Amino acid sequence: MDSCVIPLRHGGLSLVQTTDFFYPLVEDPYMMGRIACANVLSDLYAMGITECDNMLMLLSVSQKMNEKERERAMPLLMRGFRDAAEEGGTSVTGGQTVVNPWIIVGGVASVVCQSNEFIMPDGAVPGDVLVLTKPLGTQVAVNAHQWLDQPERWNKIKLVVSKEEVKEAYQEAMFSMATLNRTAAGLMHKFQAHAGTDVTGFGLLGHANNLAAQQRNEVSFVIHNLPIIAKMAAISKACGNMFNLIQGTSPETSGGLLVCLPREQAAKFCSEMKSQGSGFGGQGAVGGAWIIGIVEKGDRRARIIDKPRIIEVPSRGSQAANQDNSTAIPAPSPNLS
Amino acid sequence: MDSCVIPLRHGGLSLVQTTDFFYPLVEDPYMMGRIACANVLSDLYAMGITECDNMLMLLSVSQKMNEKERERAMPLLMRGFRDAAEEGGTSVTGGQTVVNPWIIVGGVASVVCQSNEFIMPDGAVPGDVLVLTKPLGTQVAVNAHQWLDQPERWNKIKLVVSKEEVKEAYQEAMFSMATLNRTAAGLMHKFQAHAGTDVTGFGLLGHANNLAAQQRNEVSFVIHNLPIIAKMAAISKACGNMFNLIQGTSPETSGGLLVCLPREQAAKFCSEMKSQGSGFGGQGAVGGAWIIGIVEKGDRRARIIDKPRIIEVPSRGSQAANQDNSTAIPAPSPNLS
Repeated sequence: MDSCVIPLRHGGLSLVQTTDFFYPLVEDPYMMGRIACANVLSDLYAMGITECDNMLMLLSVSQKMNEKERERAMPLLMRGFRDAAEEGGTSVTGGQTVVNPWIIVGGVASVVCQSNEFIMPDGAVPGDVLVLTKPLGTQVAVNAHQWLDQPERWNKIKLVVSKEEVKEAYQEAMFSMATLNRTAAGLMHKFQAHAGTDVTGFGLLGHANNLAAQQRNEVSFVIHNLPIIAKMAAISKACGNMFNLIQGTSPETSGGLLVCLPREQAAKFCSEMKSQGSGFGGQGAVGGAWIIGIVEKGDRRARIIDKPRIIEVPSRGSQAANQDNSTAIPAPSPNLS
Repeated sequence: MDSCVIPLRHGGLSLVQTTDFFYPLVEDPYMMGRIACANVLSDLYAMGITECDNMLMLLSVSQKMNEKERERAMPLLMRGFRDAAEEGGTSVTGGQTVVNPWIIVGGVASVVCQSNEFIMPDGAVPGDVLVLTKPLGTQVAVNAHQWLDQPERWNKIKLVVSKEEVKEAYQEAMFSMATLNRTAAGLMHKFQAHAGTDVTGFGLLGHANNLAAQQRNEVSFVIHNLPIIAKMAAISKACGNMFNLIQGTSPETSGGLLVCLPREQAAKFCSEMKSQGSGFGGQGAVGGAWIIGIVEKGDRRARIIDKPRIIEVPSRGSQAANQDNSTAIPAPSPNLS
């Protein structure tokens, strides 16, 4: 499970908590702080929990930074983390900072709640529909952006993508990673989600497999559609699939929720995600959610079909973002139904 | 405060939690795991909390270790951490591991409790007595032990200490750091402690100052006695006070609790600490507690008197450990009473 759930000595309450820490992957320290916080909270949101009682921050200052760099970067990093926590209705009351060769940023999120406040991620049934709430491709976007300054790397992808497109994709990835999955967590309750997880280091397929393995019923997850930040599929292909993006195992940071919803609720979930706008900072950013597959009878594994449909997700603000017909439910696999 | 205390939405309950992570300082990975866990839990114990509902472990594997080294060291480190958690009546249910240039070990400890389960560290009154539950000098012992292999360093201290004594002090420091402060936390309730903290990175005086600054009453803490692992005071002096051990600012790891007790309870607290044996792993190790000073009217600061009495604390198991008359209460400062 994404968070641990500890039954408490007091009146049917449970402590749900999670921790996560990693290394910066975007240059903007403020945005990096937001991303780290969104990534920590996401493990609660994946269980349909919308509230968080407390956060702790885990930080290391790099010994390679001089005092000026520290004084400029670290307060921004902490500010970003705190702002995202505030957006999540919680606050950071403690933590620990050390010196380390590399910068580390992360945290702990804890909530004490009643059992109806979280959705155990084990209730998927055949016929359910799989929904993903953020596009894939954050790692490809972050890497491609670094390659702008590395001619040898850049030459490999310049035939399929322009510098402008890489910069746009990087911005899109950064805002997507900094966006809390809180709206999606709330809608999991409203539309009676049967299970959920968040997509991070193991990629979509890795986390789908983990989720499938935990199900009470004998089900399998079949993924038909891959919503991907525009042009990132082309980059991944041009690099000889080194990212395994289409294969579903490209790591994501602070990715979306993968939610199993009753068939009749999935389209409504997606349309409400869009209208609520789950975007970063509530700045009118486009929210999103895509139907990506279905739950069938099976052996508790997940797979992506041959030649999945790639849904190119343009930068937010772009008109095209609302035009994709992403709420059609895929037909069941012929060999399984 | 050592832990953060978050009032919850549910029936008068509070979430109390803390996090801590750092780098290994002893060579034995199993003992290092125990020390890290004891150090994390200590922040709860400092508030008189004896129970912990959940722990998370924070780890990094060093990229400089080869696979064999990893496979040998990391499971032992984790085992030590888990064993100490179990001794504390809790367990580790989650965490995060990354790769890093240096090894990191730490954790998160959380408990949901009623307000009578913790002692807010702000109730000291003039006349109270200060008790310390572990000897000082862990950092000096760890450093002196490293110097056994560094002739240039060793030459500076070899006139005041033998190799055997350094090895004994290192063992004593290691077992002391691996000892949970849980017994002391329980006795804080039994003997109506008015406030407590644990002694770690800022040294005895640093933490005494922090504690004094938080008091509701206008008090100051005056420290008369310094219980120190045998020979460590001499080493510190021989190094030109580079550790500032006698000055009270030598950092400790997983140090003891500094507790403010009513005058009539302090000796009983100490004698019960001794008889219960607070030692590591319950292996009949000698528990300890020393009266180190008094609470006077003052401006919420702490100080060590000129020429404090050094109490040499011999290795556990040694007969001498029980012979020191450490429960005499110092007389108030002439200029203040």
